Amino acid sequence: MFAEIKRLLVGKPLSNEQLAHERLPKRTALAVFSSDALSSVAYATEAILIALMFANRQALGIATPIAFAITVLLVTVAFSYVQTIMAYPNGGGSYIVSRENLGTIPSLVAAVSLMVSYILTVAVSISAGVTAITSALHWLDPYRTSIAVGLIVLLTLANLRGLKESGSLFALPTYLFIAGMFALIGVGLYNVSMGTVVSAPLPEIIHAEQNQTLTWFLILRAFASGCTALTGIEAISDGVAAFKQPQSRNAAITLATMAVILSLMFIGITVLAGAYNVIPDGAAEPETVNSQLARVIFGGNSVAYYFIQITTMFILILASNTAYADFPRLSYFLAVDRFLPRQFAQRGDRLVFSNGVIFLGAISAILVVIFAAREQAMLPLYALGVFAAFTLSQSGMVLRWWRLRGNGWIRNALINGFGATITGLVMIVIAITKFNQGAWAIIVIIPAVVIVLLNIRKHYLDVAEQLSLADAPPPVALRRHTVLVLISGVHRGVIPALQYGLSLTPDNIRALYIDMDADSTARLKEKWGQWGSGVELEILPSPYRSLVAPIRTYIDQLSNRYHDDVLTVVLPEFIPNRWWQNFLHNQTALTIKTMLLFTKNVVVVSVPYHLDH
Amino acid sequence: MFAEIKRLLVGKPLSNEQLAHERLPKRTALAVFSSDALSSVAYATEAILIALMFANRQALGIATPIAFAITVLLVTVAFSYVQTIMAYPNGGGSYIVSRENLGTIPSLVAAVSLMVSYILTVAVSISAGVTAITSALHWLDPYRTSIAVGLIVLLTLANLRGLKESGSLFALPTYLFIAGMFALIGVGLYNVSMGTVVSAPLPEIIHAEQNQTLTWFLILRAFASGCTALTGIEAISDGVAAFKQPQSRNAAITLATMAVILSLMFIGITVLAGAYNVIPDGAAEPETVNSQLARVIFGGNSVAYYFIQITTMFILILASNTAYADFPRLSYFLAVDRFLPRQFAQRGDRLVFSNGVIFLGAISAILVVIFAAREQAMLPLYALGVFAAFTLSQSGMVLRWWRLRGNGWIRNALINGFGATITGLVMIVIAITKFNQGAWAIIVIIPAVVIVLLNIRKHYLDVAEQLSLADAPPPVALRRHTVLVLISGVHRGVIPALQYGLSLTPDNIRALYIDMDADSTARLKEKWGQWGSGVELEILPSPYRSLVAPIRTYIDQLSNRYHDDVLTVVLPEFIPNRWWQNFLHNQTALTIKTMLLFTKNVVVVSVPYHLDH
Repeated sequence: MFAEIKRLLVGKPLSNEQLAHERLPKRTALAVFSSDALSSVAYATEAILIALMFANRQALGIATPIAFAITVLLVTVAFSYVQTIMAYPNGGGSYIVSRENLGTIPSLVAAVSLMVSYILTVAVSISAGVTAITSALHWLDPYRTSIAVGLIVLLTLANLRGLKESGSLFALPTYLFIAGMFALIGVGLYNVSMGTVVSAPLPEIIHAEQNQTLTWFLILRAFASGCTALTGIEAISDGVAAFKQPQSRNAAITLATMAVILSLMFIGITVLAGAYNVIPDGAAEPETVNSQLARVIFGGNSVAYYFIQITTMFILILASNTAYADFPRLSYFLAVDRFLPRQFAQRGDRLVFSNGVIFLGAISAILVVIFAAREQAMLPLYALGVFAAFTLSQSGMVLRWWRLRGNGWIRNALINGFGATITGLVMIVIAITKFNQGAWAIIVIIPAVVIVLLNIRKHYLDVAEQLSLADAPPPVALRRHTVLVLISGVHRGVIPALQYGLSLTPDNIRALYIDMDADSTARLKEKWGQWGSGVELEILPSPYRSLVAPIRTYIDQLSNRYHDDVLTVVLPEFIPNRWWQNFLHNQTALTIKTMLLFTKNVVVVSVPYHLDH
Repeated sequence: MFAEIKRLLVGKPLSNEQLAHERLPKRTALAVFSSDALSSVAYATEAILIALMFANRQALGIATPIAFAITVLLVTVAFSYVQTIMAYPNGGGSYIVSRENLGTIPSLVAAVSLMVSYILTVAVSISAGVTAITSALHWLDPYRTSIAVGLIVLLTLANLRGLKESGSLFALPTYLFIAGMFALIGVGLYNVSMGTVVSAPLPEIIHAEQNQTLTWFLILRAFASGCTALTGIEAISDGVAAFKQPQSRNAAITLATMAVILSLMFIGITVLAGAYNVIPDGAAEPETVNSQLARVIFGGNSVAYYFIQITTMFILILASNTAYADFPRLSYFLAVDRFLPRQFAQRGDRLVFSNGVIFLGAISAILVVIFAAREQAMLPLYALGVFAAFTLSQSGMVLRWWRLRGNGWIRNALINGFGATITGLVMIVIAITKFNQGAWAIIVIIPAVVIVLLNIRKHYLDVAEQLSLADAPPPVALRRHTVLVLISGVHRGVIPALQYGLSLTPDNIRALYIDMDADSTARLKEKWGQWGSGVELEILPSPYRSLVAPIRTYIDQLSNRYHDDVLTVVLPEFIPNRWWQNFLHNQTALTIKTMLLFTKNVVVVSVPYHLDH
């Protein structure tokens, strides 16, 4: 039954041979790997504007220089990552690069930073995608959290089926989004040049102006907010192996193209937001800055406006989807290195790392619920993890060049060193200016999770040692059985269990019954004479209505009686004919079995009695 | 560990002797049993106004006559229930009355109607309580669903601990609410008499006027909407046993008092809403009509205003809490009659019917999420179930008087007959006028659940028959063992399992290993020679990475080999030292055990190997 539902949702199992690799041409790869980075223009400009509202709406004018500064940073990081692509033609994610060049602890910090940012990629992108739609259709506002969670469930199911990261399915929305954005920016700039710009209408509730002086701290915080524009830029370095030959070169060209497109869109939107005097919406269910812009430029009822909002939603869904490829792969690497439970290293029926997919979906859905699907509230958590991973990855590259000292290593080390320094500084800026807005949580979470990962590995090494047969004594045959049959009544299901117990030992056997009410107990005693096969029956009271506690006490006494025996507890279980009928019977057998599993020196035997209908 | 969390949340177990009954004086009983009924003034007037907005805001004037009509209905129903109280001094819930007088199917219809209305009591009351607060504090709007779900979780935990339905804890909020409401109505009417009434300010977004003609259909629908004022009125008839002697008389007096208070508050609010020209708020996160009224009468920043909103929230939480007493009690009765799974008939550690409490909490939380905690959207579902239960209960009373023909039976039968006719007519009005707004769902759900209940009972009778030892053949001793030891490797945990298997049969035994990768298999074969105790080893491939499927196939073949044997599958299980470490190991043993439990003619033996650390 459960199996049937699973089949319906995720499809038939695939055999090992069906695990295939596909090589992507550049134009498809651009779409596959860049949705995460490009989609950040959906919220990055707004993040800057909201941060500047801590001063007042006049301060919004400074958004454009901040956007230019972020673009410079973006180009630096991209350039730095081109080096990684060249050095790791099989994929150089931050974890791999740090592990190889910086050692265990830095690599785990990088890994956890990445895990956090993948989770936030899903939570933020899905929420922003929903906001793109609710900006257009306000009546959907009250359902935003439910819609976001629903989309996460759908994405999770699609990825459990093993959605292929390829093909025009992915290319189309990305290129439509780029086209829409360039059309918006083009028309907007044309209007600017013709002097036909009108101010965007004020939102019903404008974002609260806090009327603080525009200090350097506020400016840096606005910069830090805008740095979310860089999220996802590392994706290509992780996926070099998916490119057609020459893979490094193609990947580098694709990365450069993406950086250019992203820079143009980000600056374009920011400049227009200033030109059209867009003030961030401060309602509980706000309209995005991009929607306000598209509405004033194209008109709120135009096809073009809806095109922008819909393509924005689609590219944001694609962006979430990239995390569904990255997170399970990273958790696979960590599980193989024994830092995560081994369940993360197993391919499911459909050849995907199902547990990573489910984990990612569950955690990001929880985040979406906590933050009521408001992406702007989650952004402070997002950038810090991303920049920590950037910094570690670039630092690892510096040490790599130093270690290998190949051709032109000084130049390479300088480029990555510059990248590492800049991203490190930005990381510190984010940590300080965004501390109160949630960055503190990331600063707490990353070391805490690193400690957990180290302990997981310690546990696995421990277990391997304890199970090792080196120095194990030779096997000793079992000398003597003690048998206890647990009964909840006298009925047909009990008979085979008693016979099984008697086959183990005809004399050292007894039955145990827990007295829950006097009437039933009296009836039971009567029947036992006829059907008990001469086995001694013990009856224990249970004042607290618990079955487990008195059984446990009795077993502890019994297992202390002999020291050269094995105590076997026999459980008669009647099994209903249909799966749903199990819900109609107490799962006490299961509870007792679980309890006994953790009791030392007890072997548990289930003797089933199958009902016919 | 799980046990510790449970202790912390719900407290220590209580022994059977601690189950006590308390008798309530009238003034406490009024508070305990009336919160559900009285709290309906928080939303009933608004429901009428919203229904009338299908015409336009001029139609709102008709709300007052509708409220008077509903009050007449209320008095009729209360009078009818006084009869039930007199006839059933130990409590006459609709299920009990219908079962005794109308037979199985009507009693199940009554039971399901009640279950539905208890669930909606929680969902509606909690949502309305949250709306009372968000009406005052708009910035809490985006979190309304989370707050409502959080409150349900708290209520569920409190009731799992066994919150006592008594004492001043309950009396205080109820009387404060009544005091606040009468103060509001008093001041409002005084203003009306002095001619100092001003219109309430229009909400930012007024509820959409649909500009339909004010037909009888619309008027009846507004009436049907207002009938939610009667929800909870039957509570006292269900709890007669909790009153001090003379219990029936005291209960009847309390019911009459409650009906008077409720009528006064309901009419007062409705009249004032008209006088102050309150227009329902149509925002996605609306302000309640009562809040608008309290705001215009007391001023939005006054202590009195906040007093009204806070006491409204508290009485609505109390109202939800009554369902936490009623639902588990009803499901207990149904479980004892075998119509619900027997788990609902068990008292938990704290002597409460824990499963009923948890079920109620879970379903109402789901409803709250689906409806985004908007109580007005849930009301159409609410009234229908309540009136179905009213009608069946009153009809049952008529048949009872007819059957017993005691003193004055004709008069009694006429009173209940009038009540049954009126509530039956109202039920039909609700079903028709609210059909499109959700009543259809109730019309579908009630018969569907009744069918499920009948099938549950059929299953239990079936199982009892199959397990009966009447005509059972005498027990036959077990003749021959076949043993299969499942292994996932060769390590210390496997040795005791092999020895156990050998103790069952030294010759008819083999071990089975599933080949997942060639390297491990080669290593295993090598070790088997030294540690296998001479047991034959079978190795099976698994192209789909499933352990379960090849094991199942092999076992099916093996169990067909002999017909006079019992096939025992031995599972070596190594058990980590600490509970959390279980998450780090595959729960394949558990999966395999579950699969084997449903395989006929197989006995499963777990041989644990406990790790030390």
